[in-house]
Amino acid sequence: MNLPHSVRLVEVGPRDGLQNEKQPISVADKVRLVDDLTGAGLSYIEVGSFVSPKWVPQMAGSAEVFAAIQRQPGVTYAALTPNLKGFEAALEAKVEEVAVFAAASEAFSQKNINCSIAESLARFEPLMAAAKAHKVRVRGYVSCVLGCPYDGEVNPAQVASVARELYAMGCYEVSLGDTIGTGTAGDTRRMIEVVGRDIPRERLAGHFHDTYGQALANIYASLLEGINVFDSSVAGLGGCPYAKGATGNVATEDVLYLLQGLGIDTGIDMDKLIAAGQRICEVLGKANGSRVARARIANR
Amino acid sequence: MNLPHSVRLVEVGPRDGLQNEKQPISVADKVRLVDDLTGAGLSYIEVGSFVSPKWVPQMAGSAEVFAAIQRQPGVTYAALTPNLKGFEAALEAKVEEVAVFAAASEAFSQKNINCSIAESLARFEPLMAAAKAHKVRVRGYVSCVLGCPYDGEVNPAQVASVARELYAMGCYEVSLGDTIGTGTAGDTRRMIEVVGRDIPRERLAGHFHDTYGQALANIYASLLEGINVFDSSVAGLGGCPYAKGATGNVATEDVLYLLQGLGIDTGIDMDKLIAAGQRICEVLGKANGSRVARARIANR
Repeated sequence: MNLPHSVRLVEVGPRDGLQNEKQPISVADKVRLVDDLTGAGLSYIEVGSFVSPKWVPQMAGSAEVFAAIQRQPGVTYAALTPNLKGFEAALEAKVEEVAVFAAASEAFSQKNINCSIAESLARFEPLMAAAKAHKVRVRGYVSCVLGCPYDGEVNPAQVASVARELYAMGCYEVSLGDTIGTGTAGDTRRMIEVVGRDIPRERLAGHFHDTYGQALANIYASLLEGINVFDSSVAGLGGCPYAKGATGNVATEDVLYLLQGLGIDTGIDMDKLIAAGQRICEVLGKANGSRVARARIANR
Repeated sequence: MNLPHSVRLVEVGPRDGLQNEKQPISVADKVRLVDDLTGAGLSYIEVGSFVSPKWVPQMAGSAEVFAAIQRQPGVTYAALTPNLKGFEAALEAKVEEVAVFAAASEAFSQKNINCSIAESLARFEPLMAAAKAHKVRVRGYVSCVLGCPYDGEVNPAQVASVARELYAMGCYEVSLGDTIGTGTAGDTRRMIEVVGRDIPRERLAGHFHDTYGQALANIYASLLEGINVFDSSVAGLGGCPYAKGATGNVATEDVLYLLQGLGIDTGIDMDKLIAAGQRICEVLGKANGSRVARARIANR
């Protein structure tokens, strides 16, 4: 059993977590969330995205959020940028790192971003060139790696193909997302085994959703396969609009609890993390999606 | 990675799941639950317990439940029996197999059953003798194996000591219970490693609670350690009254989903299992505690 000594958690709550919220969330509340997460010791926070507000109105204020957060040295504040226009807006907002995304399933790519996988990858080329010129690191996301809401099963070879292209284009890390949360530990192992033939495992990250309650088992399976970066969302914020009943992203608190129990270092303070999550849940008027947070708060 | 080809799930919903419900549940509803679980392919169902109704009023009708269920060949219908009196009542109700329980923590033993661990074990001796005489198999439970609500950490050596005594007394299987759900995959591995020095792993079972969302990761870790029997509760019924905010027993549906994904056979039909869980939740007027059931029902 070779477990890593330390793991990096990529906090996606402010972006992936909030983007599908229907109610307006003030810039001040978003800034407070990011600052709370910085204070809790997160070293990587996806703050917002630079996409058309027509498509994702909740992310319209991302530039203002970037302008107001208290940036700390050693913490990466990243943004999702679907194209060159978004990248340029991100540059203007002094974003230090960006992320691009592609789907492992043709049907999902068509329905989600209205183009084929190949077209979506081609669109990143000018962005990748600009990022290189500006020395901005780019992270790649692949969605639907363990299942598609339209196509059902997704072949690991297809995941590997998309991940390989993102890596070859210059993404320093590729995050493998089980968007609909249907994958199990066995699927996770098989997928990593195939994708890991082309990309070093230290360049892969796991992004799991807890819709079927499998996220922590999948993370444990991934750790045993040599993965040591995981995306998670404080208080389990967010969910996939394409999967009804989705409980969404795995909660950062629950992942941290697992890692702490395994003696794996993350640099994150659990109490401060729980407070950050509970605060945004109160702002949203939502139940806290972290089981650890719920149990800790109930036992106070 | 040596995973078992098949796993036996011990369904504890009708007993462990319902025993702490405050509202009255009719014998007919309990019988229906057991019959539904039989129909879903469960091969082992803990139907009730023969304890003083003063302590656990919800289990007062266990004899009537045993009299009314439709027993199927190949399915074990078991009951919890804390002492000889309970065992005799179980015999009268034609119970085929019984279970006894002890705690791995002194403080929990004192607060839960009002005696020391040693005293609780001594009380089982006449029961074990009677069971042997009547050729009734006895299963042993150890609670608090990964933490105690009063003492905090529990030493794996203490768990091993209690488990060893139960095994030596004649329990054919010892179920290791993380009563408060605080254990993680690392704790689980270490505990099995220690307990497994004295008892063959095929004689051990895992009993995990999902209070901190760790149950499936713990089950996956246990599978990798050679455990192939797990206790679970349909719809996640039940919880520990000693841990506030407890989401209780891991849901059978969620465990089954994990096992199906790993290609491990259980003989259980997911659709029928979900229907059995949803029906009892409707009777209780409670939200379904299984993430798989919630996701499946929402996506219908």
